[in-house]
Amino acid sequence: MNSSMKSPRKSSHLTQDLLSDCKNAFLALRTLELKIRNQALKIFADLIEQNERLLLEQNQMDLEAFEGSNDESLYARLKLDVTKLEQVVHGVRDVASLPDPVGQLLERTQLDSGLVLDKISVPIGVIAIVFESRPDVIPQILSLALKSGNAVALKGGRESLQTNRAFMNLVSDLERQMPELPSGWAKLVDTREDFRELLAYPEFVDLVIPRGSNELVREIMNSTQIPVLGHAEGVCHLYIHAKADITKSVEVAIDSKAQYPAVCNALETLLIDRKVAKDFLSGFEPAAIDKAIEMRGCPKTRQILPNIEAANDKDWRTEHGNLTLSIKIVDGLDDAVAHISKFGSHHTDGILTEDAAARERFLANVDSACVMANASTRFADGFRFGMGAEVGISTAKTHARGPVGLEGLTIYKYVLRGKGQVVSSYVGQEAKPFSHKKLPLTGRS
Amino acid sequence: MNSSMKSPRKSSHLTQDLLSDCKNAFLALRTLELKIRNQALKIFADLIEQNERLLLEQNQMDLEAFEGSNDESLYARLKLDVTKLEQVVHGVRDVASLPDPVGQLLERTQLDSGLVLDKISVPIGVIAIVFESRPDVIPQILSLALKSGNAVALKGGRESLQTNRAFMNLVSDLERQMPELPSGWAKLVDTREDFRELLAYPEFVDLVIPRGSNELVREIMNSTQIPVLGHAEGVCHLYIHAKADITKSVEVAIDSKAQYPAVCNALETLLIDRKVAKDFLSGFEPAAIDKAIEMRGCPKTRQILPNIEAANDKDWRTEHGNLTLSIKIVDGLDDAVAHISKFGSHHTDGILTEDAAARERFLANVDSACVMANASTRFADGFRFGMGAEVGISTAKTHARGPVGLEGLTIYKYVLRGKGQVVSSYVGQEAKPFSHKKLPLTGRS
Repeated sequence: MNSSMKSPRKSSHLTQDLLSDCKNAFLALRTLELKIRNQALKIFADLIEQNERLLLEQNQMDLEAFEGSNDESLYARLKLDVTKLEQVVHGVRDVASLPDPVGQLLERTQLDSGLVLDKISVPIGVIAIVFESRPDVIPQILSLALKSGNAVALKGGRESLQTNRAFMNLVSDLERQMPELPSGWAKLVDTREDFRELLAYPEFVDLVIPRGSNELVREIMNSTQIPVLGHAEGVCHLYIHAKADITKSVEVAIDSKAQYPAVCNALETLLIDRKVAKDFLSGFEPAAIDKAIEMRGCPKTRQILPNIEAANDKDWRTEHGNLTLSIKIVDGLDDAVAHISKFGSHHTDGILTEDAAARERFLANVDSACVMANASTRFADGFRFGMGAEVGISTAKTHARGPVGLEGLTIYKYVLRGKGQVVSSYVGQEAKPFSHKKLPLTGRS
Repeated sequence: MNSSMKSPRKSSHLTQDLLSDCKNAFLALRTLELKIRNQALKIFADLIEQNERLLLEQNQMDLEAFEGSNDESLYARLKLDVTKLEQVVHGVRDVASLPDPVGQLLERTQLDSGLVLDKISVPIGVIAIVFESRPDVIPQILSLALKSGNAVALKGGRESLQTNRAFMNLVSDLERQMPELPSGWAKLVDTREDFRELLAYPEFVDLVIPRGSNELVREIMNSTQIPVLGHAEGVCHLYIHAKADITKSVEVAIDSKAQYPAVCNALETLLIDRKVAKDFLSGFEPAAIDKAIEMRGCPKTRQILPNIEAANDKDWRTEHGNLTLSIKIVDGLDDAVAHISKFGSHHTDGILTEDAAARERFLANVDSACVMANASTRFADGFRFGMGAEVGISTAKTHARGPVGLEGLTIYKYVLRGKGQVVSSYVGQEAKPFSHKKLPLTGRS
């Protein structure tokens, strides 16, 4: 995505037609029965299973076109294999087995006799999703959208074009097998320019979900008035409190950093209370070296570990996404919270302590999507949190925060059923009172 | 607000300093105990009561400066009197008596033995509010923000500057009486230019709530990447179905249109099924004339009521906000839903019918924040819906939709409490399973 994304312009009828199709499909999709949505998911899973060879062949074409490049990690993400496809199929079937996220009765209030207000969950509308390199994101996103009754406009990476198209052909097969599915509910946006244009249509697109590099996410956030669900940086912290259990702390810090360093919930900065700095670092250093963690420290840290590099202000703000770890010795809990507040990204931050009061103060004072005590930051994840499936992790302060499951693809509407009541009966001198009585949530709206 | 608002620029340190103060105040405010927040609300109500004369004097200065203008409705909104101030005081005390919107335990999941995940409600952060002419909005907004632990940057109309400042002086008095309140939690933004600038700081401002003309709201929505809670148009519809009770329908339509035509939930377009058009209009016409409703009709309507003006495509999209009513005869329920989908603003739309199947089909198929059967559109309101207090009505598809109470000023965070668990125990060949057991919601997090 280039910087011209910053001022999206409406120009091509192609984009407008595509989005208009999506919007119309949404209007049909959102009232589709759960039974039909689940049946579609099962057929989609079967189609992926049956077309395994075809998908791998198309993927092979992408891989061959890519081989000139030397980016091994990108190649690994681009490459499909039998195991990955089995996981995809398993994932789609899992989504089919989840409870219905829409049509749920969230609140029921009797306003007056014969005047009952329901608050029910409904799908959001048209969701635009952009992702890079990993073509297995397509079936994952499609299944979550279909389950929740949302239409989707998808933009995949150019490097996985053949694989993306192969998956979208299966969507066409699915639509042929199930005429109940409104055609247009899932559309592929081919070029970057088209996706850039799409961001200029808040009247058609209700939510944008970027899944890719921090740079991609930040550029999208800066270039659209459509709500964006996601996060740019994941600069996660662990604070080793003065009353931390050292053995446990070393284990949790190593897991947070090294279990999978490339992901957003991995540890970037370790804050150590000066009272336990020597103790902790004497246990941590050999374990870190063993895991090839590259430590960078503040001046006080380097008094204890003189052989490590110096950390600078840029390090405190950086999601390295590799085995680089910034270490700072702090004066206490408030100092740690202040550092997190200044340099953090409000993603996931934790404390290690055996002191209940300190633990609760940290958990209350750190304003992040996920706050943790005595647990690895790597737990911040939709599957581990028990959501079944994850759309992404959000650092937004509205709509959805932290790991987002199907619930993040829903909103609600109010449904009022009356018997001809008018407002003028409830105002003025002889106004009838409202009862505003909460009723039990039995069944659906 | 002029059109240069469309490209906000960061330039003045004033705005940045003000927002930075707000953000710091928020960090202290959000963990303030309910008891203290409620006490502050009660003192604030007392201060307004005690300073009634001063407030009215300052308001008189605004009114005198305004008298050159001829806008009577604006003058009426600008003017404070004893009754309005009593309502304000009552409103602030009501907010004090509402349940705590933050710190509520929303979900509790045991991930594994000794590893428990809480989802708790928390305030959003810094909320920027812009409003026009009605200075009594200030205490209303301040009390909602304080109750929910959010800091606010307020921009009032220039015409109510003295009154706005008088209310803000009471905030200073409140802070002197209660040193527990972090200073800076409520700031007045003086000029339009400063507010325009503020919209360019998503790093400081978490939510914008515009309360004013449709034009103001639309301009703000088009000029910031910060989430905006509100609505531009309220083009509300009623559809008189073929099986409607005519007497009831006339009464509901008259109430929806004429009970308070200037507000967003008032009726703008009446859609009448052709099967009952003559019947309905013969009852509706005299009642409409009696209320001075100015009808505009489609060609078929004008065959029945030849003396009314013709409605054009612009009328279908217009929130008149006065006694002008557009009338269209439609071919049936699907035609009505299609009209609402094409011309509506997704605010509030209703059906009049005695047929349960038609009712449910309409309620499911109309994609609006509030959908109603056999009830006046004027019920779409936070107080009538039983929320106690209202921030505004939202037509957004994310975060909050329809009338928004205190809940719309909150978001959630995840709190994980463990005993030193690491993710590596839960992956690979000998992975421990997660229990993902929902626990009862007893007490607070």
